[in-house]
Amino acid sequence: MYDLIIIGAGPAGITAAVYAARKRMNFLVISKDIGGQTAWSGEIENYTGYQFISGPDLTAKFEEHMRKYNVPLKEGEEAIDIKRIGDKVVVKTNKGVYETKTAIVASGKRSRELGVPGEQEFKNRGLTYCATCDGPLFPNKDVAVIGGGNSGLDAALQLINIAKKIYVINVTESLTGDPIMQEKVMASDKVTVLNKAQVTAVSGDKLVSGIKVKTLEGEKTLAVQGIFVEIGLIPNTEFAKVIEKNQRGEIKVNSHNETNLPGVFAAGDVTDIPEKQIIIAAGEGSKATLGVFRYLARLK
Amino acid sequence: MYDLIIIGAGPAGITAAVYAARKRMNFLVISKDIGGQTAWSGEIENYTGYQFISGPDLTAKFEEHMRKYNVPLKEGEEAIDIKRIGDKVVVKTNKGVYETKTAIVASGKRSRELGVPGEQEFKNRGLTYCATCDGPLFPNKDVAVIGGGNSGLDAALQLINIAKKIYVINVTESLTGDPIMQEKVMASDKVTVLNKAQVTAVSGDKLVSGIKVKTLEGEKTLAVQGIFVEIGLIPNTEFAKVIEKNQRGEIKVNSHNETNLPGVFAAGDVTDIPEKQIIIAAGEGSKATLGVFRYLARLK
Repeated sequence: MYDLIIIGAGPAGITAAVYAARKRMNFLVISKDIGGQTAWSGEIENYTGYQFISGPDLTAKFEEHMRKYNVPLKEGEEAIDIKRIGDKVVVKTNKGVYETKTAIVASGKRSRELGVPGEQEFKNRGLTYCATCDGPLFPNKDVAVIGGGNSGLDAALQLINIAKKIYVINVTESLTGDPIMQEKVMASDKVTVLNKAQVTAVSGDKLVSGIKVKTLEGEKTLAVQGIFVEIGLIPNTEFAKVIEKNQRGEIKVNSHNETNLPGVFAAGDVTDIPEKQIIIAAGEGSKATLGVFRYLARLK
Repeated sequence: MYDLIIIGAGPAGITAAVYAARKRMNFLVISKDIGGQTAWSGEIENYTGYQFISGPDLTAKFEEHMRKYNVPLKEGEEAIDIKRIGDKVVVKTNKGVYETKTAIVASGKRSRELGVPGEQEFKNRGLTYCATCDGPLFPNKDVAVIGGGNSGLDAALQLINIAKKIYVINVTESLTGDPIMQEKVMASDKVTVLNKAQVTAVSGDKLVSGIKVKTLEGEKTLAVQGIFVEIGLIPNTEFAKVIEKNQRGEIKVNSHNETNLPGVFAAGDVTDIPEKQIIIAAGEGSKATLGVFRYLARLK
């Protein structure tokens, strides 16, 4: 019987774990990976205290910080259910069942898919959801980034140093990412932005060779060898069946990070807090563990 | 007429400023100092991404991060009033009057005083509110730390490496700081903890020579040359006369960091968010600027 189980090891889960370790709780972290979306980020310039750090480097710092406390970690394990039975919280994973007094759901988000013909076929054969991971595979190639928000612009910025030509395919009237990132992207003559543009198909033979795009001028196929999909994220909350969510599937939390399930807290991108930022997720992870600490103190 | 004025440059204000700069806002930071309480902290081990960093070092990282963006900063200037006039927010300082569309109050907290005879007289003559700043002045001396929470224990830990004997004077039944810090403090044979103990007076000649303490066994004077007061913090909200506060004087915010005054947001230790942590303040600073950004977008 644990005091606390933390589901997820992104910025929220790791910060929650550091605080739990310092509070000497009897706890466990269950996560399929380390770093969450941070591990997939390119340049990070808005995590206060680090003027400039790459996603993988910040993830390494986070992981070292957590491991310093010998945090008990079940890596590669995935939660498939969480519920309350009597005064216990029961977490079921693909490998076992755990009982705990409290839990923090910090399972984050994953990439949204395009849902167009060819996407499944060319996944990892030219089509990817991670510019940081796969950008370097496209030196001097023509590529398309789908999405004009911060993630799309981040991908485009990474690709400017690698690819030959970059189409940014954006569904809205104009780019929506931070102005500072827009400026950087627009400053490169490698970049062509297509606004009010929708992807309708991915084509190729063994590997991606083109992407079909519908704009106000009609439909056309752009010849590209790489496609980077950056159209948003879906919360990893399918396992949290009895926890209340909003229409986006994000877990509803109050200002103390409590969910509708007594003893179950949530933190980070998986929650309905509108801003998805590393520094915010980390702060929420800390708040959640301190909330758990007070909850456990009241139980005694 | 600014888009945004940020009052304070601790972790919340600095993070708010970094986000505002990246959003290319027309903004100004007004603060009497840089770093807030962080600058006064000793060892920091729970700012995710830094396993170990001193308060002054983390403050330096924060300041560099902010200055990288050439943030317009009025340092040494103090807000004395904030109000709404028509559709403007007007901030009055000891040096001028500024008009802005929005403001973020991130003015933090300051040390609570003991309120006992001798305190004012011996301030900076042996009595201090900052172990990080003044601890090194007491090598091989006998000192008292007032307070058994995290700040008190942090002060005691710093002093273990400097002073000869450390009394920790704690008003509650037992220490209330993080168990991991309690263990470290108790592991030192330099430390004597007095629980259920209340300071009644500070004595000395030109410099502190003793502290009078009332315990269950009666009143006694401990011979000490240094006194470190760590009994909590008071929010710097006196200037925020028309902003709604709780009974502790902390500014009430909703989950979007909005106060009762339209266009006026708050973030960090100055708010009624119960946890006072650097990582949480930084996250709230980010949330506040993103909230301001959405507010300004709605105004247009």
